[in-house]
Amino acid sequence: MRILVLNPNTTASMTASIRALAEESARAGTEILATEPLWGPESIEGHFEGALSAVAVLDRLATLEEPYDALVMAGFGEPGREAAQELLDVPVFDIAESAAQMAMMLGHSYAVVTTLDRAVPQIRDRLLTAGLLQRCASVRGTGLGVLELEEDADRTVEAILTQARAAVDEDRAEVVCLGCGGMAGLRERVEAELGVPVVDGVAAAVAFAEAVVGLGLTTGKGRSFAPPRPKTVTAWPLSRHLRPNG
Amino acid sequence: MRILVLNPNTTASMTASIRALAEESARAGTEILATEPLWGPESIEGHFEGALSAVAVLDRLATLEEPYDALVMAGFGEPGREAAQELLDVPVFDIAESAAQMAMMLGHSYAVVTTLDRAVPQIRDRLLTAGLLQRCASVRGTGLGVLELEEDADRTVEAILTQARAAVDEDRAEVVCLGCGGMAGLRERVEAELGVPVVDGVAAAVAFAEAVVGLGLTTGKGRSFAPPRPKTVTAWPLSRHLRPNG
Amino acid sequence: MRILVLNPNTTASMTASIRALAEESARAGTEILATEPLWGPESIEGHFEGALSAVAVLDRLATLEEPYDALVMAGFGEPGREAAQELLDVPVFDIAESAAQMAMMLGHSYAVVTTLDRAVPQIRDRLLTAGLLQRCASVRGTGLGVLELEEDADRTVEAILTQARAAVDEDRAEVVCLGCGGMAGLRERVEAELGVPVVDGVAAAVAFAEAVVGLGLTTGKGRSFAPPRPKTVTAWPLSRHLRPNG
Amino acid sequence: MRILVLNPNTTASMTASIRALAEESARAGTEILATEPLWGPESIEGHFEGALSAVAVLDRLATLEEPYDALVMAGFGEPGREAAQELLDVPVFDIAESAAQMAMMLGHSYAVVTTLDRAVPQIRDRLLTAGLLQRCASVRGTGLGVLELEEDADRTVEAILTQARAAVDEDRAEVVCLGCGGMAGLRERVEAELGVPVVDGVAAAVAFAEAVVGLGLTTGKGRSFAPPRPKTVTAWPLSRHLRPNG
Amino acid sequence: MRILVLNPNTTASMTASIRALAEESARAGTEILATEPLWGPESIEGHFEGALSAVAVLDRLATLEEPYDALVMAGFGEPGREAAQELLDVPVFDIAESAAQMAMMLGHSYAVVTTLDRAVPQIRDRLLTAGLLQRCASVRGTGLGVLELEEDADRTVEAILTQARAAVDEDRAEVVCLGCGGMAGLRERVEAELGVPVVDGVAAAVAFAEAVVGLGLTTGKGRSFAPPRPKTVTAWPLSRHLRPNG
Amino acid sequence: MRILVLNPNTTASMTASIRALAEESARAGTEILATEPLWGPESIEGHFEGALSAVAVLDRLATLEEPYDALVMAGFGEPGREAAQELLDVPVFDIAESAAQMAMMLGHSYAVVTTLDRAVPQIRDRLLTAGLLQRCASVRGTGLGVLELEEDADRTVEAILTQARAAVDEDRAEVVCLGCGGMAGLRERVEAELGVPVVDGVAAAVAFAEAVVGLGLTTGKGRSFAPPRPKTVTAWPLSRHLRPNG
Repeated sequence: MRILVLNPNTTASMTASIRALAEESARAGTEILATEPLWGPESIEGHFEGALSAVAVLDRLATLEEPYDALVMAGFGEPGREAAQELLDVPVFDIAESAAQMAMMLGHSYAVVTTLDRAVPQIRDRLLTAGLLQRCASVRGTGLGVLELEEDADRTVEAILTQARAAVDEDRAEVVCLGCGGMAGLRERVEAELGVPVVDGVAAAVAFAEAVVGLGLTTGKGRSFAPPRPKTVTAWPLSRHLRPNG
Repeated sequence: MRILVLNPNTTASMTASIRALAEESARAGTEILATEPLWGPESIEGHFEGALSAVAVLDRLATLEEPYDALVMAGFGEPGREAAQELLDVPVFDIAESAAQMAMMLGHSYAVVTTLDRAVPQIRDRLLTAGLLQRCASVRGTGLGVLELEEDADRTVEAILTQARAAVDEDRAEVVCLGCGGMAGLRERVEAELGVPVVDGVAAAVAFAEAVVGLGLTTGKGRSFAPPRPKTVTAWPLSRHLRPNG
Repeated sequence: MRILVLNPNTTASMTASIRALAEESARAGTEILATEPLWGPESIEGHFEGALSAVAVLDRLATLEEPYDALVMAGFGEPGREAAQELLDVPVFDIAESAAQMAMMLGHSYAVVTTLDRAVPQIRDRLLTAGLLQRCASVRGTGLGVLELEEDADRTVEAILTQARAAVDEDRAEVVCLGCGGMAGLRERVEAELGVPVVDGVAAAVAFAEAVVGLGLTTGKGRSFAPPRPKTVTAWPLSRHLRPNG
Repeated sequence: MRILVLNPNTTASMTASIRALAEESARAGTEILATEPLWGPESIEGHFEGALSAVAVLDRLATLEEPYDALVMAGFGEPGREAAQELLDVPVFDIAESAAQMAMMLGHSYAVVTTLDRAVPQIRDRLLTAGLLQRCASVRGTGLGVLELEEDADRTVEAILTQARAAVDEDRAEVVCLGCGGMAGLRERVEAELGVPVVDGVAAAVAFAEAVVGLGLTTGKGRSFAPPRPKTVTAWPLSRHLRPNG
Repeated sequence: MRILVLNPNTTASMTASIRALAEESARAGTEILATEPLWGPESIEGHFEGALSAVAVLDRLATLEEPYDALVMAGFGEPGREAAQELLDVPVFDIAESAAQMAMMLGHSYAVVTTLDRAVPQIRDRLLTAGLLQRCASVRGTGLGVLELEEDADRTVEAILTQARAAVDEDRAEVVCLGCGGMAGLRERVEAELGVPVVDGVAAAVAFAEAVVGLGLTTGKGRSFAPPRPKTVTAWPLSRHLRPNG
Repeated sequence: MRILVLNPNTTASMTASIRALAEESARAGTEILATEPLWGPESIEGHFEGALSAVAVLDRLATLEEPYDALVMAGFGEPGREAAQELLDVPVFDIAESAAQMAMMLGHSYAVVTTLDRAVPQIRDRLLTAGLLQRCASVRGTGLGVLELEEDADRTVEAILTQARAAVDEDRAEVVCLGCGGMAGLRERVEAELGVPVVDGVAAAVAFAEAVVGLGLTTGKGRSFAPPRPKTVTAWPLSRHLRPNG
């Protein structure tokens, strides 16, 4: 089977590390196709950038010609999952939801350690809407921006560990989720130091995509995720209407 | 004061009726500025179109040069409010939230009567995220599409009344909200027939904008709605990069 | 339009400061009528005094002959709103609900800073019943009694700021509500020092009353707030049965 | 031990039937003292009458000289419990809470069958505030007013059974609570016909009062229910200031 | 009436102290029958031991020939209550539920102080399922194992007090429940030192059993607690199939 | 990898059909080991049988010598998952939780169609405790007992479809879960007729076990699922103490 993994920002090095993690997580026989939008923000650290990149991702989907069996959206708690699910017949996996779901399989409650403090309410809202907040012990920010995560892995791991330890000791989390696609590749180090299970959303989403597709299941398209109704949509797909050097 | 009312779809006749309602609702001295996006879907009836129009709205905001004191987003339960609030220093009002908030001032519980059945879960999720679902008795669809609402006002009123009566009698709603910007102008007729208070979100949002701005208050920008961080955003604003006849 | 603002305790100086704030908040053309009960407690700091003053307020309403278009009840989280709404055809606004509702328009979550610690559960229960607790980050007491608030404004502001800062930093509130009618007039000072939006419930309630009345809306009287059924009520209105120097 | 049972309305025949039920429910050695307020409404069917009778009950408590070990407030879901608990050192039992609590001991979920439809939201709010709503399957009205209950016992039983059967069959209730002090004495008949356990709140409250007092426990007075602070309360207790033939 | 009190572990000294407390709590005329399972764990400190002892308790019930009017299960938050209620026609009382219910009669919110930290999520889940979690301020562990409780009463009281004080001061509990059957007999000492009401679940359950049985009520057997359907159950009751010295 | 699938009842034909489904669901390279308890009930249709079979399952685990990488417990909503997770280091999957989790990946809300009406509250409680109830549209019983399911597949499919259609049309479910291990093998037929995705919990649990084990993750053992503490457990494992023909 083939899984498309979409990094929602335009930073190609992040796509590369997400792809590497996805490939490492996938079982034999699963092909990973990874890409990023053609336009939009270089990182997502708020609602505006999230909304923009959601459409940039939809635009990328609308113009991608290769077939795939499932889509993994690699922005943690970003919008766009429902919209993509409407456009596509194949199942769509959001890494925030997948991380939370896998964490709930591994312990009584879980925490999320993410980037900036400002992302915390947005992630909580995403988990609330997804029906996954009840077992969430806390969402905590490290204070590091998305692109800072890659700059110094040691500093990043240390910052994650500080919050993860507080989540375990004070908030009573039994599992910790890495709350940003940009933390791809740090799971083992954090888990080894922390001593409780650590979940990476990209790996979880790839595994769940394999599980769902492997069972021949797919998303219900009868109500929430019915295909868009036929209508006039001006300038869609956007990338076909953007000027060459737009 | 000046309030910008944004119809999230590209149908100018809907902008006109929304503007008319906003002007009628506004107090003396409030100026209504109404417009719609330069591109995007002609109506919003699902997640994909909602995501798209959210960005089209943001794009419109990014290129609009006239000043205003508050923004009313006239899509019922559509995404984009948080993103717009990040971009703007003036307060932003979503008509679904405003309708629910005003309804909660008028009765113990409220219902929403909207367009298509497929919109129901999306509206419920919006109210849940906004912390306004507890007093919601039900969200019901009329089965009419957004652009069908304007075709035959009598049919539309009848379809709304059928669901509104069920909401009052079976779901125990004490107030009914009109759940689509395209229902602008039908409030009095529905209320007269129904005999319980009926709220239009556009009118409610305009009145709340006047209330908030009138008190000299504005949105907190310290965490959830802090301005976007400086970064590279390719092809933004989109409309400046779209081809003339894109 | 004319708005009646009722201070629920018998302390006329508090009525005066509430009236001043209401007048300052009202738009041109709104007339403020302010009064207090003819009997009852000089301040409200618990359930007993709240129950008593609720009836003293109802009694005042029953004997007031001047017409008005909306009622603002200026006790923060006090009982009696539903009872007053049954008696009256005009809409009734409780300042705790109004403060919370306006705060929810200004940020993702809000806190309330009130007087005594013992009031905290009562306020939380009021917000819970009103369907407004989900976005409440915390309710915190300053330790100052209602009548102490007026004694030394500097001390009061400092006590409010201490709790408000903790609400912002520890509880993640993005907006702060002043949780007592006796804090009227301190909003600007607290907001200037705190740096996040601060809401005064009296101002919010007046503005919402203007919004609702301005749109020609009124409370649904079909179920929860139907007028009292005809029956024998001994000694009502109470003030007509109290001895001259009772 | 001695338990004071307070009928919150002024209808002495209802006090008599409540007293009879309380005496029948009490164990040997428990003395029942039953009375009603000296003023106020003859029945309680809404918020206004509830607020009024709450104070009439407090007034009655303030002037009653006989000692007692616990108070049972025999209005179903009426306000005033917290206020009475502040005034008194002995524990206070509300019959709505007691009914719900006993029902939760007897089955997985319970329903309440009450008088008028308008009382339904009020009872639900009371159960919500008391933390007892989660296991409530439904609250249903018979359409009978409080004083109508006594007029024709057969009709009353039939009306209760109609709603109780719907609660069991449609709402999946496993226990039914009689939702009005005026239904005292009908429990056995309804239970015999219905075939599921039926709880009367007066009996439940008396039994719980015996349980709590029997164990030497009493209410915590440290925060929510601390005694009123010393202050000027004009015209309190009211009955001492009412004119002889007020 | 006769109440059967079942210590869920095999430690006879714990049965003795539970029996003593039950007898002391019971009113004149109530006979306490106390016993423990014939096999299973000597203490319960986790899910495995809880599951095992639930069946050991059911086995004990299946082979006990003496009649009784109610069953008190003296494991705090242990499973098995629903299963026992299916087997028995008499009402069954779980001491965690009874403690929480009595605590809710005595204050606005309550805390539980239990043994090991690992028991905390299990107790919270029990209260959640029972519909009693809303008013729970916190569940806190002392760090003492079940059998350690008896070793040094002074140390146990001190450990309980440390957590109880934090529950009152930090978590705002107004009542504290002793969260282990092995704490039987310490209530007065803890309450005297703490200054807020302290509830022992065994005493509460005995008193509630007396209340329910005294009113002639019993559990609904129509759905959740219907008797087991006739079927083949191999090796049941287990104790009849265990080898003499098994 | 090797997955142990435990049918919680003693009916070997049900083990066989569960094994067949598990094998069919598993990917190449996964070995399925399937068995049932050595004693206990032939089917589970209530709390008593659930409690008993939970221990029979634990007993089977305690005496099974073959290694495995994950455990699937094939009783829908039965107790024992947490207890098994304490005993084992490998992750444990309950088919009710797995079905709900997979359903949440496939649509906005899901329903469960199960056997007898009496199982409905038990399944709802299991989903509540697991933090998975929010997106559950309904749990519905077919009226068929567990062993009746196998008697006449056509009748069983028809009974499932009747409830599933009501769940989709009336309760707004977008996905349907088969709510009993005894429905193994009917998924395709029901899905083909129903037209919305249908999830079988055994298949879902096997796929999730493969996902979790495949990523090298395992359950956190630090708090809720820490191994049992060393202590005396009389007659454990039970099967070693049962008489040969017990």
